[in-house]
Order: sequence, then C-alpha cells, then structure tokens
Amino acid sequence: MQVSIIAIGDELLIGQVVDTNSGMISREINPDGWSVRSVRVVADDAEEIKRAIKQAFDETDVVLTTGGLGPTKDDITKPTLCELFGGELVYDKAVEANVLEVVRKRGLKINPLTAAQAYVPSSCRVIQNRVGTAPLMWFEKDGKVLVSMPGVPFETQEMFCTEVFPMLKHRFPRKDALQHRTFIVIGYSESVLAGMLDDYEKAMPGNVHLAYLPKPGLIRLRLTGTDTDASRLEAVMAEQSDKLASILGKSLICREDKTIAQILGDMLRDKGYTMATAESCTGGNIAHEITQVAGSSDYYKGSVVSYANEVKEGLLGVDGTALATEGAVSEPVVRQMSEGVSRALNTDCAVATSGIAGPGGGTADKPVGTVWISATKRGQTESKCYHFAGNRDRVINHATTMAQIMLIKMLIN
Amino acid sequence: MQVSIIAIGDELLIGQVVDTNSGMISREINPDGWSVRSVRVVADDAEEIKRAIKQAFDETDVVLTTGGLGPTKDDITKPTLCELFGGELVYDKAVEANVLEVVRKRGLKINPLTAAQAYVPSSCRVIQNRVGTAPLMWFEKDGKVLVSMPGVPFETQEMFCTEVFPMLKHRFPRKDALQHRTFIVIGYSESVLAGMLDDYEKAMPGNVHLAYLPKPGLIRLRLTGTDTDASRLEAVMAEQSDKLASILGKSLICREDKTIAQILGDMLRDKGYTMATAESCTGGNIAHEITQVAGSSDYYKGSVVSYANEVKEGLLGVDGTALATEGAVSEPVVRQMSEGVSRALNTDCAVATSGIAGPGGGTADKPVGTVWISATKRGQTESKCYHFAGNRDRVINHATTMAQIMLIKMLIN
Repeated sequence: MQVSIIAIGDELLIGQVVDTNSGMISREINPDGWSVRSVRVVADDAEEIKRAIKQAFDETDVVLTTGGLGPTKDDITKPTLCELFGGELVYDKAVEANVLEVVRKRGLKINPLTAAQAYVPSSCRVIQNRVGTAPLMWFEKDGKVLVSMPGVPFETQEMFCTEVFPMLKHRFPRKDALQHRTFIVIGYSESVLAGMLDDYEKAMPGNVHLAYLPKPGLIRLRLTGTDTDASRLEAVMAEQSDKLASILGKSLICREDKTIAQILGDMLRDKGYTMATAESCTGGNIAHEITQVAGSSDYYKGSVVSYANEVKEGLLGVDGTALATEGAVSEPVVRQMSEGVSRALNTDCAVATSGIAGPGGGTADKPVGTVWISATKRGQTESKCYHFAGNRDRVINHATTMAQIMLIKMLIN
Repeated sequence: MQVSIIAIGDELLIGQVVDTNSGMISREINPDGWSVRSVRVVADDAEEIKRAIKQAFDETDVVLTTGGLGPTKDDITKPTLCELFGGELVYDKAVEANVLEVVRKRGLKINPLTAAQAYVPSSCRVIQNRVGTAPLMWFEKDGKVLVSMPGVPFETQEMFCTEVFPMLKHRFPRKDALQHRTFIVIGYSESVLAGMLDDYEKAMPGNVHLAYLPKPGLIRLRLTGTDTDASRLEAVMAEQSDKLASILGKSLICREDKTIAQILGDMLRDKGYTMATAESCTGGNIAHEITQVAGSSDYYKGSVVSYANEVKEGLLGVDGTALATEGAVSEPVVRQMSEGVSRALNTDCAVATSGIAGPGGGTADKPVGTVWISATKRGQTESKCYHFAGNRDRVINHATTMAQIMLIKMLIN
C-alpha cells in the first residue's frame, strides 16, 4: 500500500523548520509493507493545499497531511478540508474535553484560541489527540482516505504510531510482502564499493533492489525485496543478505539499521566495558550522540569537553610542554586527552578529538578540517590524523563518526 | 520569483535521510525576494520524476532538483532529463577533468563508476561541481529553467550559493521587494502570545503577515512584507517591527533570526564573560549547540558531561551525601554541578542539568521528563525544576534550550 504525504506550513517552505514527520511516517510504515510514494511541502494557503490534495489523490488512495492545525491565524487547513469533503465546522464537545485535559496536564490555562481547536468539520471522524490540543481528522470519500494530523513532531509520531497507522492497516489490509535489510559498511567510498558489488548486483533477482546511502565515514546499504509470498521473500532475502555479507567481509560492521553510537554501545555492553570521551573540536557532539541512545548510562560515564587548553591540562592532565611545542591539534595532545579522560573517569575505553572545525583557525600547516583522533582500549591507544572536507558542521559530524569507528575497530580486533 | 523544488531519492522516502537541502535553498533565496512555492520528494524512478517535473512547471518557471546523481545504479535522473529536454548523453571532457581533480584532492583513486559521471545530456549547460563529482546541469526550454544539483547537502549548499543562485538572479531579475524580520520570544505559549497580539495583527497592513514558529521553550515570530517599492517596504517593516517589539517587552530576547546558542554567545562576548557547562541528562547537547557557533572558543571553555555519579563527585566536587540523600536529580546536586564546573574551569558563568530523559529511569516521585537546571553568574546561582513532555530527544532538546534561556535571563538582569 502506498501513501502520499502533504506537509503544510509556511515555516517549512522558508526553511526555519525541517520536515522530519515524513521520514518518521516512512520508517514506521515500511516494515509493514507500506511505503511513501511522494511527499509534498506546501504553504498555509487554501489553493495550494487543495491542489496538493488533488495531485496526491491522483497517485494514491491514502493521503496523510501534517501541520496547518495550530491555534494561530496562519492556519487555514480545516476550512479547506470542509470545502473538499463537505460539511461545515461544528463545535465538538469531546474535542473540547480533550483540549481541556491536555492543557490541564501541561499546567497551562485555557484561552479562546486554544478552545477554538474544538471546531472540526462535520464530515470527518475525529481522532482525539492525547498529547496535544489539535484534533486529528479522518476523511473518507469514494474509497479514498485523508487523515489530517498536527505538525508538532512529537504529537505526530505519538498519534500516528498508536492510532492512525493501526486504523489504516485495518482499513486497507495488505497483500504484497516487503522487506528491507540494512548493512553498515566502513572503509570504502561509494564508487569503490559499487565497483566491488557490480557482479553481485547483476546477479540479483528482479524483485530485489540495492540502494547506497552514503554518510561521512560510512555507507548504509539497503536491500529491498517484494513478493506476493512472504516466506519465499524471507528465503530470498536471507540468501541475498548472506551473499552480500560474505563479499563485504570485515568492512561490514553491522547487519541492522543502527546508528554508529548504537553499534558502539552494543559492543561495549557485550564486553562489559565502560567508556568516556574527551572532546575539543567536536565540542560535545560525540557525548550527545552516545547519550541519545536510551540506556547508554550502562557503559558511558561522561565526557570532558576541553575547548580551552587550560581544561586539557587541568582536568585531563595533558602536558603543558606538548601543548606549547606541538600545539593542541597534535598526536601527543590527543593521545594524552584520550588516556587522561580514561584515567580521570576510570573507564576501560575512551576516544578523544582535537582539530580545527573552522571556518577560522586554520594555518598552512594545519588547515581547517585537520582533526587528530585517538581511541584508547584498556591502556592501549591508537591515533590518526584526518583531513575532513566541508564546513564546520560537516567537520564536526565526520570527526564524531570517525572517532566512534576507531574505537569500534579496536573492539572488533 | 518563485521556485519549486524536487528532491529525488529513495533514501528520502524511506526516511533514512532527511531533506535539509530544500530548507537551505529557502533560507538562501528569501532575503533576495525569492521564495519556494512547493517541495516534492519523489523516488529514483523515471515516471515519478517526470510527473513531478511537469507538476512543478505548472506552478513555477524555475524548478530545482536535488539528488539522483550519484555514481551508483539507483540513479536514473540524467536519462530522464534527456527524455524531457531532448539531446543524448555525451561524454564531457571538462567534467572528466573536474571529476579527476576532485577525486585527487580527496586522496582517492578514479574508477569506472566515478568516471561515468562525465556523461551529461547534450541539451544542458554544465556547471562544474567544485566540491564533488556529480556535475550540475542547467536546462532551459520555453522560458522555463530546470537546474539539476547533487543531493549531498554540503555539495548542494556550496554550489547553489556560489553558482546556481547568482545565475538564476541574473536570468530572472527581481521586481517585487520582500522582507522578513524575526523575533525570538520566551515565556509564552503559542496561544497566549496569539491572544496578546490579536489587536496588533488586526491592525497590520495587508502587505504584512505574521507567522508563529514555536519550538520547545521559545517562539519565533516572523514578520513578512512585500511591496513593489523597497524603501516604502523598509519603512513599513521598521514601523511594524517597533510596534511589535513594544508589545512583546522583556519577553523579546532577540530581534534577529539567531539560535539560542548564538544569542547567549553574543551576550557573553559583549560582557567579556566566559562560561562552562556541566551536563547529566542533556549528555553534551548543550556543549554541542554552543560549539556549533563559529568563534565560540572566545567565551566557551568546556563541559563536564557527568553521566556517572562518580564523575559528578570527582570532577565537579558534588557532595556525596547530597547524591545519596537527595539523589542525582535534585536541587543541591544540580546547583553544586553548576558551581563546581564554574570553579573547575575557572569561568564567570555556567549552566548544569540533571534529569531523567527516559524512556527508563522514572519514578512516581521523579517521572520521566523531570529535569533540574541551574545557572551560575559570578558566584550567584539560580535553580529550577522542570517537567518536560515527550520522548527522550524532546526532553534533551527542551532542557538544552531552557538551560541556555535561564542563563540569558540572568545576563539580561
């Protein structure tokens, strides 16, 4: 089953907010054999919304909209839906009760604008929003379904996963089976990897497809298969996956769709190791990625973000002479940072970064993008100098990934 | 001038990659009076791409595509563009030379797949990609322009800003003037603020529009105006902005479109203050946000991410008795963390967080979302307990914003 998504909101089109709801919806529905055929982002404008809905219904029988439902005046979605599906805006007591309850839980007071959320088109079936004030609305006409959802990512996710998608699966029971398998590969560029997999891809059955999803430092390979018979598909996918894994060899570090921080965390937990981080140019981003993983407190003790040299000396015990003679971005300093934080926080493992993220601070000798990375495993430390391309964000992100990969490699060996 | 964007790529539709290019393009073109009318996200599929291009050209004379140009086999954009704009794929020596140069700079070797990037439709004008291997292509037909760009955000940004947009502005000189003004407001919910601004909005001239962009902890207000006369628009926007600012009063913390970390950084730099952070539940995210700002090393010394209690005691000097009797998520602990990191890193200011980000770890007394936050300014510390709604990511992000806002408020007073 395919769906089209329409994300409504001026804030998306002027680039102040990024649409993360569409990706969330895709990730949620893919495992059940559903897929997103297209996404449209349109303004808070009745004509644009109507045009988008018509185009979307030309493509799919299910259209999901997000956004355009806030209590403020830039929202015109509800009257537009009335126009398309008939009926008129009516005051719904059950919605009012839900709005009051949500507002009470948040410790806020009701006001006329919040109360106005209780007006809904008489042509829709209301789905109460347990986690926000904007009600969800299910419209149905000529066998086609449109569900209007709020745009706040947390609300969209909660309500789509627990209410909307179960209702859609009930309304449109599935026929074809679909499977994705993900492989995390390190150490190759996209084109070198594609060359390596050329013969494999040529021999793939027609109902299986391979996609490359490169990120700085790693490549995600996604194998997708469809079949009318779920168990036959299972067998084909298992065979193709094993064939692919044997070609990838040691460069394949994970056969599930996990983040680098999740892969590292699983390895640390398996071995019963703890870890710490000492960050200069990555400025806390490694700590942030590691602690985004629920349960990371099992193995992660903490980080010293040593932006200033005095912090490198004071908290990490980096030798002042090395800082003075070699500079902060150097092998001796990053090694001492990694070993120092492992000692200070009493952990088995550590990683450290020291580099120039830019845009300023580069020299002829150490241009912007130069990053020294160290990883320590039980007293043994490895260090390497990288030269990352791109702007500040990209240098920080690339260094964050490579530091974790360095430790992952040491844990594998 | 309006443009439509088509983001091409299966990876976007299955939710493994988020389309950040469209937002980047919007932010780049808005100040020059250009805007994005719609964004479409479609699969690596010839029919879908053709349909999207036709729909987009129905709406605007300029269509920008991103993605679908990598060296691997899931890319079918180039042959599709040949079909639409005529011509055939030809081997372009200048593109080949550019690809070789980019590959050489990256320290990689050329392979047949990378070399294949040199095939381009004979109907296009090539724009050499200085920062990647996929060439950009400018097509023109019946007064309408389509520019095909790579999908890697760093490459798209660099090439769009330095080459594509200047060429577009030259091709379509602008007529109407457009201005945005942004106001960062704290302390109100969206609906309370909308109530406060009701009279103001009713009295606004017809060519000015106000939009609400709420985020956890703050609301961005965006005033947009258009006029055929740029200096008349300037005067109207200045008048409307001042009127709005006087209503907002002290809850208006910034009249530019800046992140909270930029606002805080500007205040610290103005006062000549330094700062540090001590993070438990936010796990380095405050440090990460602060160090995303270029030049933050002027005022930011570093962070201690004290995920484990022993780190709170060892590096921050938190009293073990307080940890044992009150627990890590408590006023005495978060206060000692803030004061401790300010002392350890010898800074004027500090913020600290200690809370339960979830999904595990909550108790009846301290449910998931409970976060204690402290801010210290020259020896004076304030603390507050928050209860944030939502999942782990949202709790971390909300706490990250509120910690910075707490210090901003202390710096204002």
